[in-house]
Parts: sequence; structure tokens; C-alpha cells
Amino acid sequence: MTRLSPNVPLSAQVADQLRRRIAEGEFPVGALLPTENELSQQLGISRNSVREAVRSLVHAGILGARAGYGTFVVAASDLAPTLARRLESDTGRDVAEVRTMLEREGARFAAARATDEQRQELRRVLDERAQATDGPTYVELDRRFHELVFEASGNALLAELYRGTGGNERALAWVDSPEVVVAEVGLLEVDRAHADLVEAIEAGDPEAAASVAERLVRLAYEHPAMNVEGERHGG
Amino acid sequence: MTRLSPNVPLSAQVADQLRRRIAEGEFPVGALLPTENELSQQLGISRNSVREAVRSLVHAGILGARAGYGTFVVAASDLAPTLARRLESDTGRDVAEVRTMLEREGARFAAARATDEQRQELRRVLDERAQATDGPTYVELDRRFHELVFEASGNALLAELYRGTGGNERALAWVDSPEVVVAEVGLLEVDRAHADLVEAIEAGDPEAAASVAERLVRLAYEHPAMNVEGERHGG
Repeated sequence: MTRLSPNVPLSAQVADQLRRRIAEGEFPVGALLPTENELSQQLGISRNSVREAVRSLVHAGILGARAGYGTFVVAASDLAPTLARRLESDTGRDVAEVRTMLEREGARFAAARATDEQRQELRRVLDERAQATDGPTYVELDRRFHELVFEASGNALLAELYRGTGGNERALAWVDSPEVVVAEVGLLEVDRAHADLVEAIEAGDPEAAASVAERLVRLAYEHPAMNVEGERHGG
Repeated sequence: MTRLSPNVPLSAQVADQLRRRIAEGEFPVGALLPTENELSQQLGISRNSVREAVRSLVHAGILGARAGYGTFVVAASDLAPTLARRLESDTGRDVAEVRTMLEREGARFAAARATDEQRQELRRVLDERAQATDGPTYVELDRRFHELVFEASGNALLAELYRGTGGNERALAWVDSPEVVVAEVGLLEVDRAHADLVEAIEAGDPEAAASVAERLVRLAYEHPAMNVEGERHGG
């Protein structure tokens, strides 16, 4: 790695470089970051500096570590984590309205712009998601599903705002436990709405997609387990 | 001021307190902050600590200093300035789509929720705005106008996202010069749209308000002076 400024600590320069590579999509949201060892060899610097850089990006909310798996990209910029922090002091109603707005708009643009490849991938993830039986697998496929919708929207800023509202993590936090058996928690209607969303996107119908997306948010907020979650916001 | 932690510098504690008072609306966006002297007396701490705290909030993009006037609140939280920084690397199209979404939704909620007082204030600012003859007065009244629409929307999170997209500053940067004579720069259609927006809000018609808001964003983006601005975004 070219050392640009001798006055800036190496770890801060590595962090800046990683930020840029993440923002530019070399490491997209959801991707596993190379290991400390790999990054250290790739950049020709000590593992200590790499570790410090990674730690600062975890602190900033751009990377997330999952024990036993590694370090993942969870946001493309500071925007999503800053929005996530801010939501803690917003009222549940304000957050619900903003989430509905983002989901509607993401679905609308996805229906208008998804490539054939994105449509096929969406269908594939929908099918896998329908076959998930345990909580964590369901949550991960659901995360991938919604991330795909926003990728297909073609608007990176919109996608990052969506991530900042918690993506599906907030809505499905209660499912994310190995003990949860998906078939038992009443997600049938939610699953049907996901299938309808894929159909509207496949049909290239923006208004239908927006309306299904709104139904999906409402279902999430109406689910008994979500009402507890809804109150976690400030008001 | 109660000194909560002896390990945290006084100026950082003052900054935190000011952040909280701003977030809670004691100093709303657009308000003039008390002078360093007043704050120093109010909190019983040195002017130096106050100055340092204010400087850090200016740096964070929450406060803004205007020479000869004082220090103003320009954002209610870190969200707006973080969003504003992020826009620099987004494409013009992505930003335009997100701005349109926010303006539509703000106008829609304002039409559904504005109080009588807010409707009257909106009408008053519209009339004053129509009488402005020089650039800076026009820009300030326009800023107040749009801030009022988002206040009337009753959604503080939506308002903060709007501020982060530059509010009217980005759209009207080219007008904000004492040499600009408002009557000469072809804002007639823009002014008419502002009047239509107030009418839709007064009539309590959310769909009409959303549609006028969309027209307003389009007018701003279509204005010859805006095209230059539009390209300042990354793509």
C-alpha cells in the first residue's frame, strides 16, 4: 500500500482505503471481508494495523463481526449506522412511516428496473426462503431477499437509507434464534406477500410492487412479536 | 451544570448537553443559539469550554455560524450532515429520486396533519416570500417555507432526512447573492407551485399536495441554473 501521509497513522489510512473500497462496491454489503492475514499480505502491512483499522470500522457500524464466521460488510457508508443510531430517539410512528416510504419506493424502482438476472436471483432466494425451517436461516435469506430488492432498485442511496432503518434485522430480531421453528410462528401471510412482491417485480408493475411492499411493512408491524419491538423506539 | 464525569472534558459534556437540547427541540432548526457569554453564565462554566463545544458542533454540521449574525442550529442530529456528506458521492439521479420521495411524503403528511396555526404561518411566509425582491431574502423565506411544510408533516425523522438532502440550499445556491433580482430569474412557475402547495395543504388534500411537491422538485431540477448544480453529484 502506498503510504500517502507520514503524519496519519497507518491503521487510519487502511481504514480509509477499506471505506473507499466498500463504498465503491468492491466489498458489497453482505460480503465477507478477507481475513486479517489476507489483508495484511495484500497491503504489505502488519496484522496489527489491519486489526486496528477493522476494529474502527466495526465501531463505526460499517463492518460487523459474527463469531465463527468472520467480518462482514453491513453498511456501505456512515449513513446507515448514523440513521440507525438516530432511530433510537425517534417515535415508533415516525420510523414506521419512513420505513414504509423507503420500502414502497424501493419496490417501485425494482419493478421498473430489475435486470433479468436480478429477477431470477430474487425468485431463487424466495424459493430457498420458503424452504427454511429454522429461525437464523430464514432471517439470513430474508435479509438477502430485501437487499436484492434494493439492489434491483438501482438507487444506492435509497438502499443505504433502507439499511439504516434496520433492514429486516429490526423486524425479525425475534425470529433469529435457533429454537424458532418458522412454520409455527404464523409467517404464512408474510411469505405470501413476499411471493406477491416477486410477481409484481417480474411483471414490471411498479404500482403493484409498491402496494405489496406497503402491505409487507404493515404485516411486520402488526405481528404480535413486533408490537414489543415497535415500542423500543422513543415514543 | 452538573459535571457528570470527571474523566470527560468539560467542553465534550457541554457539546453533549447542547446536542440533547437541540434534539429535544429546545433550540429548533433555524433558531439562533444564545451567545457564548449567555451560555457560559447559564451553565456556570468558562467561555473557553463553551467556545470549544460550539466549535465541535459546527464541525459536526449541527450548528452553522453566519458572520455578523451569530450561530444557528442547522440540523437536529448527526443524521442530516452525514447524509449531506454522503450525497457528494451519489449520482445526481439517485439524489433527485430520494429528494422527490421526501418532498412528496412531507407534503402528503403536511396536508393530512397541519394545525390551523401552521396553515396560517405557511400562508404568511408564502406572502412574504412573494414580496421578496433580492436573492438572500428570497432564499431565507424559501428555507423557512419548506422547513414549515416538514414541521407540519409531524414527522421529525422525515424532516431531518429532508435537511440532509440540502433542503433548499442546494436548489437555490445560485440565487443566494445580493446581486440577484428575483423578478428577473424566471421563478414565476416555481412561485405558482409554492402557492398551489399551500392551497393543497389548506384544503387538506394529501394527494394533491404530494403531486405539487413533485412538480416543485422537477421545476427546481429543470431550471437552467440547477443543471450545473445537478452535476455536482458524483455521477
